[in-house]
Amino acid sequence: MKLLEERILKDGKIGQGDVLKVDSFLNHQIDVAFVQELGKEFHRLFADCGVNKILTIEASGIGIACLTAQYFNCPVVFAKKTKTNNIYSDVYTSQVDSYTHSRTYDIVVSSEFLKSGDRVLIIDDFLAKGSALLALLSLIRAANAEVVGAGIVIEKAYQQGGQLVRNMGVRVESLARIASMSVEEGITFVG
Amino acid sequence: MKLLEERILKDGKIGQGDVLKVDSFLNHQIDVAFVQELGKEFHRLFADCGVNKILTIEASGIGIACLTAQYFNCPVVFAKKTKTNNIYSDVYTSQVDSYTHSRTYDIVVSSEFLKSGDRVLIIDDFLAKGSALLALLSLIRAANAEVVGAGIVIEKAYQQGGQLVRNMGVRVESLARIASMSVEEGITFVG
Repeated sequence: MKLLEERILKDGKIGQGDVLKVDSFLNHQIDVAFVQELGKEFHRLFADCGVNKILTIEASGIGIACLTAQYFNCPVVFAKKTKTNNIYSDVYTSQVDSYTHSRTYDIVVSSEFLKSGDRVLIIDDFLAKGSALLALLSLIRAANAEVVGAGIVIEKAYQQGGQLVRNMGVRVESLARIASMSVEEGITFVG
Repeated sequence: MKLLEERILKDGKIGQGDVLKVDSFLNHQIDVAFVQELGKEFHRLFADCGVNKILTIEASGIGIACLTAQYFNCPVVFAKKTKTNNIYSDVYTSQVDSYTHSRTYDIVVSSEFLKSGDRVLIIDDFLAKGSALLALLSLIRAANAEVVGAGIVIEKAYQQGGQLVRNMGVRVESLARIASMSVEEGITFVG
């Protein structure tokens, strides 16, 4: 998506440890009008798939998921990162190895909100090693719901997560696919 | 707001320890079409206040804030709950005593995204003892930005947070104000 690639080149900042900071428009400050355009693109890509639920993971996926769900006329469910004392019904649980936070954590989703018969689109901001995406897929599988695909804003295509998940037969649509990234050479995109 | 009160009576669940669960439409599953209506109401209330930024706190405030910000044509900034290793610029920090999670944590916002001259509307899902709201106000003060007010979805009016913040001269608009709540007697609203 040209609009997104241009925005990444303009406002993305490459940090230590292969970090791409897009804090100014995507995951700390959210440029809502811009993210609406991403949502419209996800809708264009998955419009015919009978999506009735969007699944994401807190925190930075939530805004993107909500602004996308409007175009599908469906609710959002976000997986929570720890079991808090106000989720007291049955939950599905999975585990994520966070690259950004250098730790492992559990995610949970209440079984009330993910059910057999649901046609679920996963939305998330980043796909790199694929740990969050694999964990979300595992929640969907546990609920016996159907995964329609995953809509990712930025994929680090030089890491293995995207390939791994596509090899599982899951449709992954990434709006920007980074081929290479370094402080010295900047960012290049796939294709 | 009648629509919201009816929804709370219909779908809210009262849990142990004064917890009101609105997980089915507000803060785990998000009924996006419904939250759009809340956003329109916040816009009606604060339309003339020159709002150029909406500030919230992860995670459950983010969806509401994004769906509200559309009507103000402004960005959202969400305060993060811990200092992660991909926020490496200057930050403002404040502390929240979480009732729900029975712990104290820091919230941070990058100084890039909250500045002198900003006219900030705070959006959050709940107001009870006021700890999160006070922490957000403190971030705004630290940034030397101006607070326009706070838009809260559900206020537990029998707790002291709302009064405390209003006494500071901050305009607080809560779309539903709970007067009393118990498993035995159910929920009553103010007014």
